[in-house]
Amino acid sequence: MRTVDIIQKKKEGKAHTKEEIDFLINGLMDGTVEDYQMSSWLMAVCFQGLNEDETAYMTEAFVKSGEILDFSDISNTVADKHSTGGVGDKVTIVLIPLLASLGVKCAKLSGRGLGYTGGTVDKLESIPNFKCALKDEEFREQIQNIGAAISAQTPNLTPADGKIYALRDVTATVDNKSLICASVVSKKIASGADIIVLDVKYGSGAFIKTKEEARELADLMIKTGAKLDRKIEAVISSMEQPLGTHIGNSLEIIESIEFLKGEYNQDLYEIVLEIAAHTLILANLAKDFSEAEKMVNDAVKSGSALKKLEEIIKAQGGNPECIHDYTLFNIGKNKLEIKAENEGYISKLDALNIAKACKLLGAGRDKKSDSIDFGAGCILNKKIADKVQKGEILCTLFYNTVKEDKINEALDYAAASFEYSLSKPEIKSVVYK
Amino acid sequence: MRTVDIIQKKKEGKAHTKEEIDFLINGLMDGTVEDYQMSSWLMAVCFQGLNEDETAYMTEAFVKSGEILDFSDISNTVADKHSTGGVGDKVTIVLIPLLASLGVKCAKLSGRGLGYTGGTVDKLESIPNFKCALKDEEFREQIQNIGAAISAQTPNLTPADGKIYALRDVTATVDNKSLICASVVSKKIASGADIIVLDVKYGSGAFIKTKEEARELADLMIKTGAKLDRKIEAVISSMEQPLGTHIGNSLEIIESIEFLKGEYNQDLYEIVLEIAAHTLILANLAKDFSEAEKMVNDAVKSGSALKKLEEIIKAQGGNPECIHDYTLFNIGKNKLEIKAENEGYISKLDALNIAKACKLLGAGRDKKSDSIDFGAGCILNKKIADKVQKGEILCTLFYNTVKEDKINEALDYAAASFEYSLSKPEIKSVVYK
Repeated sequence: MRTVDIIQKKKEGKAHTKEEIDFLINGLMDGTVEDYQMSSWLMAVCFQGLNEDETAYMTEAFVKSGEILDFSDISNTVADKHSTGGVGDKVTIVLIPLLASLGVKCAKLSGRGLGYTGGTVDKLESIPNFKCALKDEEFREQIQNIGAAISAQTPNLTPADGKIYALRDVTATVDNKSLICASVVSKKIASGADIIVLDVKYGSGAFIKTKEEARELADLMIKTGAKLDRKIEAVISSMEQPLGTHIGNSLEIIESIEFLKGEYNQDLYEIVLEIAAHTLILANLAKDFSEAEKMVNDAVKSGSALKKLEEIIKAQGGNPECIHDYTLFNIGKNKLEIKAENEGYISKLDALNIAKACKLLGAGRDKKSDSIDFGAGCILNKKIADKVQKGEILCTLFYNTVKEDKINEALDYAAASFEYSLSKPEIKSVVYK
Repeated sequence: MRTVDIIQKKKEGKAHTKEEIDFLINGLMDGTVEDYQMSSWLMAVCFQGLNEDETAYMTEAFVKSGEILDFSDISNTVADKHSTGGVGDKVTIVLIPLLASLGVKCAKLSGRGLGYTGGTVDKLESIPNFKCALKDEEFREQIQNIGAAISAQTPNLTPADGKIYALRDVTATVDNKSLICASVVSKKIASGADIIVLDVKYGSGAFIKTKEEARELADLMIKTGAKLDRKIEAVISSMEQPLGTHIGNSLEIIESIEFLKGEYNQDLYEIVLEIAAHTLILANLAKDFSEAEKMVNDAVKSGSALKKLEEIIKAQGGNPECIHDYTLFNIGKNKLEIKAENEGYISKLDALNIAKACKLLGAGRDKKSDSIDFGAGCILNKKIADKVQKGEILCTLFYNTVKEDKINEALDYAAASFEYSLSKPEIKSVVYK
């Protein structure tokens, strides 16, 4: 078998055998397949695609390239969720304590963010002293003791995906559904979860732009899970406007705490409920959606979900006082308000533009080595379908130290995010499936 | 400008600016564009193509990446030819002394071969002591003194093409006409020739399989030459059967010498004449094809072309005695004859199969570091449209030391090259345009 022949085969649109996929992935790891050969193959895949079998072979090869966690001694319904990422997405931070308080063991491995705002790990690290770099044993013990842990992904899991993802990122080969599927599903499988609920987001602020693409990706991930004997469910949700009202690392933690205190934005609630319900049903803890809904509402009302968050923060070295005292967070010392230029209804609130504004203020990073300002971000006072008067505050930007020109650029992006209409736009549910 | 954005642009089928092409090629040379980014872009080019402007930008960037030879002090009609390569292609070895004997200054840079049989440099090195690695000054002086020199390409010319060709070879991105065009034309331009005649071959034994592709490639090369102010003409010729009767390094030199002694095979004659005529007309030495034809025939009949070959061999350190004493060549000590299994006419003589047989016997190499047996090869006793009796010799294979199983495989390939028909097939001219 020669690498060049495998590349040629995909270039011609032919399907690979399991042996060929293994040859490529194992070869990349042992150095017999060169990076420049892999990137050329990845580009051919972007044009010719991978079928469902090839996608499953690749996912399996990724899983086998590294360590595979196993929690079967703790529970056989360990849950994990994954989001394809979006602006203001703090679902994990709300969901994990909520599910754990309802008896679902949650083993959550999360990433740092590249792009406009931080990833879940970055957000959690805005909690003073919170530690995400758990050792395998710490992670396992915490799940056993308090039912949930959220840790940074270790390079020991799916290292082949790590290598390939790094290549895709710089070779314009990110946007292929099979490559995305193999990357996401392999990581979740290697993480040891029995129940995996995926949140596939589409829209301006998401990586996937249309509902149809999101549905195709969700279907492929579910099928890939089935081929590899894992229960995967997928929720498709819209990212036309940012999720919730707070964007930025500290601000998103505060919104998550507020949620668990019972103060929540409707769209964030809908997604959290949908994913929680799927998980509770798969874990045989609820028989149907309405029972799951009641459980979720009770866990918030009773304060047990908030208490679980407090336990997680404590267990991972963070200062649990922050739950009651938000001044413990780094929140941008400087504020800028964007005011409505027209009166009417908000017809559009572009998530990508809001994200770009937050990035300019320091909330995100371009390179792994860049630092993040946890205090930078944005609070939305208005969302789609809200009525506004001219001059009313639409959103507030927060930042610490940023150069003048970046501030002006951020203001432009934030202002350009909003569009108005005279009649009230229809309120669409954020969850599609 | 970011490399990943340029790759994305080509992936989406958009055209590059000159600045973008320069950014990629210069970046590859200075290390700011990684090999794995280049290979990904090359694959995108295979799917989306390059337009004529982009092809010219790339050609120019290749030329400027290294040294550019200049013979304007010697002549302003220095000629060069290039063949896209085929089985039994010894045109250069016949053509250069022929043209030089007619007063055309020839600055020929040739390559070594990868694949089934050696390149022109390998063939020439089968002449005892012949030296192809001429220094720039030696090359220039020899052109001045005897009107022609044939040297191995130096890495100083078009190093960007060298790097990219090495990548294309192992990433299944060889077969794109713009990439082939930029590679060939840039090398010829950097070699300093004013008049460039290209022999674009198609068919089983060539890299390009159909006449239409050959015509497209030829058109593109001519247009690219025009954009970069060089006179390029292209001849399209068939490589359905091997060119001439001898295949293999020493054997092809012998056939070339025989040609210049006036003993030639018709199809080889046709191509040599076609290319020679184009060159003589472009150099203003002949007014039309028939005048050029007469000049070519006279140069052979008078012995002046053969004498020029002798001068070239002498000038490059080779033993000119070989022209009269073929025993000075390494010719395979062992012979195997393939005999006709049927009677009738030869309807097909597959060039690729003959090449594979020669390769198995040692005439070619896979890797640059592999050694070649100059003595290995094949002499064809019959070609397409020749009448054969059952049991008559079709071809003779020559080899020195080869393992038994390879010999058997070579025999199979050689035998499988021939097909028969009851009626005499039409004799087609080897030259299409």
